[in-house]
Amino acid sequence: MTTIDFQTEPSRYRHWRIELDGEIAQLIMDVDENGGLFEGYQLKLNSYDLGVDIELADAVQRLRFEHPEVKAVVLRSGKERVFCAGANIRMLAGAAHAHKVNFCKFTNETRNALEAAGAESGQHYICAVQGACAGGGYELALACDHIMLADDGSTTVALPEVPLLAVLPGTGGLTRVTDKRKVRRDRADVFCSIEEGVKGERARDWRLVDELVSNAGFAEAVTARARDFAGRSKRAGEGPGVTLTPLRRRFEGEDAIRYSAVAVSLDRAAGVATIEIQGPDGPAPESVEALRGQGAEAWVLRAARELDDALLHLRLNELETGVLVFKTAGDPALAVAHEKLLLDNDGHWLANEILLYWKRVLKRVDLTSRSLVALLEPGSCFAGLLAELAFACDRSYMAEGSFEGDNRPPATLTLTPSNFGRFPMSNGLSRLETRFLGEPESLEAAERHLGEPLAAEQAMDLGLVTFAYDDIDWEDEVRIFLEERASFSPDAMTGMEANLRFPGPETMETRIFGRLTAWQNWIFQRPNAVGESGALRRYGTGLRGEYDRRRV
Amino acid sequence: MTTIDFQTEPSRYRHWRIELDGEIAQLIMDVDENGGLFEGYQLKLNSYDLGVDIELADAVQRLRFEHPEVKAVVLRSGKERVFCAGANIRMLAGAAHAHKVNFCKFTNETRNALEAAGAESGQHYICAVQGACAGGGYELALACDHIMLADDGSTTVALPEVPLLAVLPGTGGLTRVTDKRKVRRDRADVFCSIEEGVKGERARDWRLVDELVSNAGFAEAVTARARDFAGRSKRAGEGPGVTLTPLRRRFEGEDAIRYSAVAVSLDRAAGVATIEIQGPDGPAPESVEALRGQGAEAWVLRAARELDDALLHLRLNELETGVLVFKTAGDPALAVAHEKLLLDNDGHWLANEILLYWKRVLKRVDLTSRSLVALLEPGSCFAGLLAELAFACDRSYMAEGSFEGDNRPPATLTLTPSNFGRFPMSNGLSRLETRFLGEPESLEAAERHLGEPLAAEQAMDLGLVTFAYDDIDWEDEVRIFLEERASFSPDAMTGMEANLRFPGPETMETRIFGRLTAWQNWIFQRPNAVGESGALRRYGTGLRGEYDRRRV
Repeated sequence: MTTIDFQTEPSRYRHWRIELDGEIAQLIMDVDENGGLFEGYQLKLNSYDLGVDIELADAVQRLRFEHPEVKAVVLRSGKERVFCAGANIRMLAGAAHAHKVNFCKFTNETRNALEAAGAESGQHYICAVQGACAGGGYELALACDHIMLADDGSTTVALPEVPLLAVLPGTGGLTRVTDKRKVRRDRADVFCSIEEGVKGERARDWRLVDELVSNAGFAEAVTARARDFAGRSKRAGEGPGVTLTPLRRRFEGEDAIRYSAVAVSLDRAAGVATIEIQGPDGPAPESVEALRGQGAEAWVLRAARELDDALLHLRLNELETGVLVFKTAGDPALAVAHEKLLLDNDGHWLANEILLYWKRVLKRVDLTSRSLVALLEPGSCFAGLLAELAFACDRSYMAEGSFEGDNRPPATLTLTPSNFGRFPMSNGLSRLETRFLGEPESLEAAERHLGEPLAAEQAMDLGLVTFAYDDIDWEDEVRIFLEERASFSPDAMTGMEANLRFPGPETMETRIFGRLTAWQNWIFQRPNAVGESGALRRYGTGLRGEYDRRRV
Repeated sequence: MTTIDFQTEPSRYRHWRIELDGEIAQLIMDVDENGGLFEGYQLKLNSYDLGVDIELADAVQRLRFEHPEVKAVVLRSGKERVFCAGANIRMLAGAAHAHKVNFCKFTNETRNALEAAGAESGQHYICAVQGACAGGGYELALACDHIMLADDGSTTVALPEVPLLAVLPGTGGLTRVTDKRKVRRDRADVFCSIEEGVKGERARDWRLVDELVSNAGFAEAVTARARDFAGRSKRAGEGPGVTLTPLRRRFEGEDAIRYSAVAVSLDRAAGVATIEIQGPDGPAPESVEALRGQGAEAWVLRAARELDDALLHLRLNELETGVLVFKTAGDPALAVAHEKLLLDNDGHWLANEILLYWKRVLKRVDLTSRSLVALLEPGSCFAGLLAELAFACDRSYMAEGSFEGDNRPPATLTLTPSNFGRFPMSNGLSRLETRFLGEPESLEAAERHLGEPLAAEQAMDLGLVTFAYDDIDWEDEVRIFLEERASFSPDAMTGMEANLRFPGPETMETRIFGRLTAWQNWIFQRPNAVGESGALRRYGTGLRGEYDRRRV
């Protein structure tokens, strides 16, 4: 199978264009029919596959880093009479279950990033819909801050998945209809049952779109609305942006990937990938201007981009790797210093963007359906934003004291202000709040040790790690855990982790990943959708799906 | 296939005993190995199937109605050295997908009822665990208000589903561990990976149980704790209880069931069941004492029991019935009067219990994975607690004015205080709050019409029904909807409804049914669990499951 590469840049885009005009950018979807990621389908009517979405994710990311001046983004189609027909059905019908699920997860994360741009960075997306906007097309619109619909008698929004394909709108559609746009649930039921969709006043009255605009003045109205959003934006971008230069990434043989601050090594027989993040190799930049001078080479930004790429690579290209082991190395004090510069300057757009990017990467970790374990070993660098990785894991093992024949300093864990609310999970709580849901006093106790390099015994006492072992037991305990984990059913692990990782409150995000996705995955296994006579397989043949009528 | 009957009574129990002693009841699980609901398995080690749980549900219900004096219930095993081994694995391995799912849903509802008894009625369950308590056995304990564990070196609690069977603890276990007992998530991960479970101090320190008691004084300690709970109970039960006499139920041919206040008719070709609830046929009892005099014949209680039985029957025995049509008939003023007596006397234990039972039945409606539609026709009785049924439906159709050749009064909809918070859904909101999540002003507008019989036009204006049609269009519109619904994939409907019905906040209950159940259902489809070499199928053969290692 071809390796899927998540790295791209605007000059290589086949499906999107960015047009810049001061505070306003246009992000234009113009999918190349023949540019599918795999063989066997054409991307007609602005339908998309993972390749199209990789470009979109790249564009959304670059707009935040490379264009601090952009405060509103108009998302529109480059084609006549069609906005976007959604995910390509033939691609879905032909894809393996794991690919379908991973595809939906990535597109969901991209939709969330698009929403986060407005909410966190004041870079607001305005969706300009002319022509059919169906399924994933409408879900793209739903992820924008504002939806404008051409009132031309033919432009519709639709979620035709249920009647047409016997699957669910899989990119947050159902959840955003009820929870973001708060469409009345019986109307939502009607809307999701109508193959041809809803147009005009009904679309507006039912809150499916925000405004109706006549075709004649459409472009002007959209620009005016974009200026309006830009005028109210809190985005404080000044001066030049930071170019996201190509990653320094080297595939070494079959089993290793080496980036500048991240290294991945694979043990395929064991089903384990080890991701080691290297702390900074020098002092923090002296000022936020110096940080900007470093550009994409700044340590946190570089580590974030590399870790993000590694996670996506493992998710899509290494399906049999069931366990991700997180390690770190380096000087915790340096990591804290680099982080401190960002925290002290979080009013500056670049420091802010880097922190927000780290937040998104951590969420990507939380949502990775592999068993996650942190090993805090001698010489490790679990401080502040890197310690957060340990709290994202299902378990953590910490080494006690020095190891024989190892002259690296004993493992420590250092808490910083960034462990107390700076990087909320999808459930809206910090990882420590989630961890200590039943014992808020433990959260307070931890906070009293802010900035101290905690040894294993202290970390255990404070409830910050799962187990601590000295060098006599360490190797055996870790090995036994990894072997045990590898012996469990991967599906049971996925289900268990999806439930245990997100206790406490739910948000639209957790509902999308926990409830909607789970039901969609179930349906993606059902013969009524994916069997020989199922609707997804029969799409385009002129035959309707034949259904087993039993309700479950 | 045998029809599953949900009606039973203590004299017919094969698996449970109730022993009464003033304020304290003992509910003793002593499963008859040979009393399985189906052939092919023995219920060893106090393992259970649906038949065992039907008796449990009956016992929990009768304790509330028949024993107002009981304020604490000790749930314990009648067997030596084993508390409960959970759901019977051979039963699960042999069951069809739909039966597995329906079985889990019913057992979940029963666990919720057990929790509700404490929270709402002050009838608290104390779980006394001696001997192995695994899987569904521990989930039963988790649903109690207090768990006491024998500190005898061998008694354990365990959730061995993941390592042993490659499925999830399916009756709320994962959710209650993290959200009710607030076990730290990494400890939960460890606990759910240990086949043999956790005992003694670790079980208590990790909050898996509430207290440890030595074996010597176990019975006394349990009784003392039960007295303690009884002493603090808010239950105000006085005087004799109400005996839940056998339902008046008649199966008429293949296609109809007639109860006293409920009638079910099946159109199997169309996949539609119509449930008609008949309003009261006489005035409300004059006092709460008169209500008690009516006993199980009181209209609301009778309607609740009958509707509950009809729903369960349709769920388990009529799998191909994809649509439930709710109708009512009778005098709305009478229905309001019967309800008013309950609301005015909700400090009285019986009025309170009846209202709380109606709340549980409505939740059972919400959680029924069939398309739900209310038809508000001439002569109907959608007032107050019956109107709530319309708000539970996915859609509602209301007839405008009189119909030709029909001399029944035009349809009306009457709101009462019971539509504004008395019957919260699993999400904690009333059905109208859920409906008007995005427009609180509509909720206020509706409240201003309290007690008025609203005609179709008004109900439409107020957003209380989905569609209104006059007698020219009525029949066609309803027919088209039913035909359309029948043409959709049942699985897609299940997934869509599970997402659209519960917008807004989530609670432990919605998480259990929406997140945990969805993942469990997905796993119940996966070859790693249910395939020929899957763990569930191989259980007891001495062979481990063979797994496809790809993560999804």
